[in-house]
Amino acid sequence: MTEVALFGAGRIGRIHAGNVARQAGVTLRYVIDVDGTAAAALAAEHGAKVTTAEAAFADQAVGAVVICSSTDTHADLITRAAAAGKAIFCEKPVDLSVERARSCADAVERAGVACMIGFQRRFDPTFSTLKERLAAGEIGDPEMLVVTSRDPGAPPVEYLKRSGGIFRDMLIHDFDVFRWILDDDAASVYATGSVLTDPAVGSVGDVDSTAVTIRTKRGRLAQINTSRRAAYGYDQRFEVLGSKGMLQAGNHRPTEVTASTMANVSRDKPEHFFLERYRAAYALEMAHFFDCLATGKPVRTSIGDGVKALELADAATASWRDRRIVELG
Amino acid sequence: MTEVALFGAGRIGRIHAGNVARQAGVTLRYVIDVDGTAAAALAAEHGAKVTTAEAAFADQAVGAVVICSSTDTHADLITRAAAAGKAIFCEKPVDLSVERARSCADAVERAGVACMIGFQRRFDPTFSTLKERLAAGEIGDPEMLVVTSRDPGAPPVEYLKRSGGIFRDMLIHDFDVFRWILDDDAASVYATGSVLTDPAVGSVGDVDSTAVTIRTKRGRLAQINTSRRAAYGYDQRFEVLGSKGMLQAGNHRPTEVTASTMANVSRDKPEHFFLERYRAAYALEMAHFFDCLATGKPVRTSIGDGVKALELADAATASWRDRRIVELG
Amino acid sequence: MTEVALFGAGRIGRIHAGNVARQAGVTLRYVIDVDGTAAAALAAEHGAKVTTAEAAFADQAVGAVVICSSTDTHADLITRAAAAGKAIFCEKPVDLSVERARSCADAVERAGVACMIGFQRRFDPTFSTLKERLAAGEIGDPEMLVVTSRDPGAPPVEYLKRSGGIFRDMLIHDFDVFRWILDDDAASVYATGSVLTDPAVGSVGDVDSTAVTIRTKRGRLAQINTSRRAAYGYDQRFEVLGSKGMLQAGNHRPTEVTASTMANVSRDKPEHFFLERYRAAYALEMAHFFDCLATGKPVRTSIGDGVKALELADAATASWRDRRIVELG
Amino acid sequence: MTEVALFGAGRIGRIHAGNVARQAGVTLRYVIDVDGTAAAALAAEHGAKVTTAEAAFADQAVGAVVICSSTDTHADLITRAAAAGKAIFCEKPVDLSVERARSCADAVERAGVACMIGFQRRFDPTFSTLKERLAAGEIGDPEMLVVTSRDPGAPPVEYLKRSGGIFRDMLIHDFDVFRWILDDDAASVYATGSVLTDPAVGSVGDVDSTAVTIRTKRGRLAQINTSRRAAYGYDQRFEVLGSKGMLQAGNHRPTEVTASTMANVSRDKPEHFFLERYRAAYALEMAHFFDCLATGKPVRTSIGDGVKALELADAATASWRDRRIVELG
Repeated sequence: MTEVALFGAGRIGRIHAGNVARQAGVTLRYVIDVDGTAAAALAAEHGAKVTTAEAAFADQAVGAVVICSSTDTHADLITRAAAAGKAIFCEKPVDLSVERARSCADAVERAGVACMIGFQRRFDPTFSTLKERLAAGEIGDPEMLVVTSRDPGAPPVEYLKRSGGIFRDMLIHDFDVFRWILDDDAASVYATGSVLTDPAVGSVGDVDSTAVTIRTKRGRLAQINTSRRAAYGYDQRFEVLGSKGMLQAGNHRPTEVTASTMANVSRDKPEHFFLERYRAAYALEMAHFFDCLATGKPVRTSIGDGVKALELADAATASWRDRRIVELG
Repeated sequence: MTEVALFGAGRIGRIHAGNVARQAGVTLRYVIDVDGTAAAALAAEHGAKVTTAEAAFADQAVGAVVICSSTDTHADLITRAAAAGKAIFCEKPVDLSVERARSCADAVERAGVACMIGFQRRFDPTFSTLKERLAAGEIGDPEMLVVTSRDPGAPPVEYLKRSGGIFRDMLIHDFDVFRWILDDDAASVYATGSVLTDPAVGSVGDVDSTAVTIRTKRGRLAQINTSRRAAYGYDQRFEVLGSKGMLQAGNHRPTEVTASTMANVSRDKPEHFFLERYRAAYALEMAHFFDCLATGKPVRTSIGDGVKALELADAATASWRDRRIVELG
Repeated sequence: MTEVALFGAGRIGRIHAGNVARQAGVTLRYVIDVDGTAAAALAAEHGAKVTTAEAAFADQAVGAVVICSSTDTHADLITRAAAAGKAIFCEKPVDLSVERARSCADAVERAGVACMIGFQRRFDPTFSTLKERLAAGEIGDPEMLVVTSRDPGAPPVEYLKRSGGIFRDMLIHDFDVFRWILDDDAASVYATGSVLTDPAVGSVGDVDSTAVTIRTKRGRLAQINTSRRAAYGYDQRFEVLGSKGMLQAGNHRPTEVTASTMANVSRDKPEHFFLERYRAAYALEMAHFFDCLATGKPVRTSIGDGVKALELADAATASWRDRRIVELG
Repeated sequence: MTEVALFGAGRIGRIHAGNVARQAGVTLRYVIDVDGTAAAALAAEHGAKVTTAEAAFADQAVGAVVICSSTDTHADLITRAAAAGKAIFCEKPVDLSVERARSCADAVERAGVACMIGFQRRFDPTFSTLKERLAAGEIGDPEMLVVTSRDPGAPPVEYLKRSGGIFRDMLIHDFDVFRWILDDDAASVYATGSVLTDPAVGSVGDVDSTAVTIRTKRGRLAQINTSRRAAYGYDQRFEVLGSKGMLQAGNHRPTEVTASTMANVSRDKPEHFFLERYRAAYALEMAHFFDCLATGKPVRTSIGDGVKALELADAATASWRDRRIVELG
């Protein structure tokens, strides 16, 4: 029986807690949160206890930690968990600073513990099936990747202020998708962006709409277009052009109802947001984490992947800010 | 805390057991099956005990029974459960005999217990959303219903022998969908059928392909086409033409991957069979059952619905066998 | 150079006149219509002359006639054209009476002239491609056919009075599609119908909504559902279930624009009505007719096909009117 | 009656000749081509005469010229046609040199003749409907444009050598689509490209795969991805994200047949290449040209649009070649 301490009883924490609880041979033992009420409610729901980080790390019975507290706590908690010999599941990003993220990766490596970063998209059934079929050679060699990544609406400005900017906060997922799907390294990054949906986004020095182009070392081309606001909901698509064809990952809909009227023929909008769209992915990534712990297999989304995605986010941020093409090693 | 006794540890029994176990305030207490090994395995999985029907009915702590044993046991178990004052969830059909089904309905009514029949399609998110939109008047008055209902493959001949025939075994779901969607009574039924997929089906006096037409008392028209074998999988569609438009319920796919090649542009086949296609429906119907028990609301699929669907199956069987149009009261 | 006399300068006559004029080596010489103004306008558009039936039949230079005048003139014009040795293209139906239609067929056979009936659906690119793929064995042996055939709105009651009823006027196309696609003969026909869209339809002894089932001699099953009024436009679909899969013919849309909004994701309604939907089919059938004349190949839609479709329409009418299953030879 | 002289009897010349011949009140009088056999064949097909450029320009009866000869002849023919007072329809591009293109535009302006450039995509029913709905405000203010533009295969290397490079030869259409759809000017252009489909493309100093980003003066973002080789055919899509939703233009298919098999559910590939995909657009643009001549309305795709698209192609070429972001006036 693996006992788990979970940090962060917010929205995503509750998702992860439920998925932890569903794993055979795994018990959610502790919930830690600065908001005692939230921690108590979540703990009660799963028969766990509220405790402190210190107590959780000190408890030898705890074999794994799940970190879904705010971004600024990730690096510290990863480092302490590694030192305590706990296996680690941590939400993205590792940190907003590449240097600190690399330090965390070093700490994890020295400790020899498993550490998985929550790039849940790699576990989405549509995305992972596409990746398998691509890897099986169904469309030959990949040549171009086009990613469309749009949220239904921007988070509060207070959140944006501390988010590290759109490239680190939102596109970090798309940079990971780029790396995973093309299995190639970036040679150059070009990014531009605009404030088109809400002037408040600009007032904190961020943008809400971006266009990124990555050229890989093998000459492949990737384009990512992103917006904080798509009126029709959460738009999560990508397509890969290969030498023998194309694979596309489309949006998921709540139902398969079609209505034909005098106006048009319509279907459902995409599933609303990430909690709905990636529900299966969240369940599958947690099952994968504990399966890796049980079998010793490497995790699919390592802390190294977290560092690499952050490096791309930094490059894109520099490209946008300085209006230049950023050449990478 | 509601304690539950579950009859039948087969394929659908395991689905229901899992869904019972997931309800808040509900405990799976007993598993009963003539196959002791299957019963023990399922009981162990959920911390329940293996027992006998007698013991389960006698235990005052048991508030509800879930009946998913073979069809020939349903009537007896419903009657005894009603006599014991237990709330009842029973898989379709109530019985292969309309008379016995009516007796069960009478017994349930006399006992005053809740009794829900497992017409899970009414809980499918696509189907139930269509029904809600239809009821809200989105396409005006319904005029025609076209149901396509095809299995990926026929069950073993041994099963078919005791199935009551394709109209009672397979189309009973479609007859319930007809009643639910059009909210109208059949005035006449015409059915024809053929053995087209496997001569063995004919050898036991059954057919594998059917075409049914129902005319309702209000003059609406419904057509149902059914096959035991669709090479591309489980095909579960229906469409309603109304005075202001059409609503269609389409198949569900495992993923939203599209592949474009030199040959064509392709997507996934429909989800394989009922366990995949109606996974959400099975969960939602069980939640509905226990919600009705807790709140006293009437169940959506009553034993009366089970009797009515069986009456239509009998009419269709007679129409097919005697080559005549069957006029109903 | 083949010279053509065209009877009927109405809506469909204008379509055919344009297609005749576009054939290489073919000249539209005469237009005949009781409405002199319409005849003159159409003749002027194509450099043809207005004349009488007598003069057209007497002109040795006329090699072919295209008959698109009102239904009650078809039999007479076919018979006279055959007697005059002209090749004949005639709009459906041959006649409202099977006996007269058979007489026409006899007259055509005795005269040894080519005679093609305008079942244009057999020339629609979607439908004819489906037929070719079916014939090539792509889905194995056909087992079931489901036809959806709905008009955007009913014609005037004055038209309905002389139409021969919905089965002869509207479903005759669907009966021909049935014969063409399944390449099999009807063993029994069951039809029912209702007045659901407009009481005026009932006042002239007709129905506006029908459900037809045909059982073929080989045991295959076909269902046809029809309505005079689909609020979303002209709905022309069919699907064939075979032993190895399914082929579906879907609606055509004016454009491939998709709109995603807060409400839903929508596409165009189907093309409005037959003039739009079968524009390509009308052009292709006329090219086929003149190609057959030039090469001596048999026409794809013979007067015999016209008679057979009418026999099915009669059977369906009898089934509906007498509330009985009609068994055919 | 407008008389027309057509230059160039190749593939696209034959398309235009047919469309010219179909216009009411318009006669194709002359065909001019260095290949006398091709000219004679095309002239014979439409009852026109073969002649020389000199004779055509000198003939006062000729009111309009249609130029579809090779690119290197365009500037000269436009200039001479303008001097002769003829209305001009010219295939894209005006010239490979922006300077020469501007000279042509000046000559046209001085002469006061109508001059339309064959950006046929603006006349495609799907694209032009999308533009109308966008202009009507259906999705609010446009924010992002994503264009996918892929050919089924690269032209011969001999062609590529004289093509001016992929940005001037192929993307010029996409640059025009960008200008037309967003109705905004480019502030900066970033382009990158690779040789991924055939090393021969690289041997003549060109690329076959490109990724272009344009930032407009109002801050809108456009991404264009292009390949000379899509195994599945001609891929011509674009989508516009606006403040209230998204409009997408999808590919057209030859038929609406869907096949469901044990493998998958498949539909037709897109229409093969530009002659099929833009057949309607070619007809509509020619009708528009002669309608403008008759009514005096301005043409939708002026020689000024041809110059502007070429300026973007030059900027993209420079960006790609010099690996820099090109800022525009």
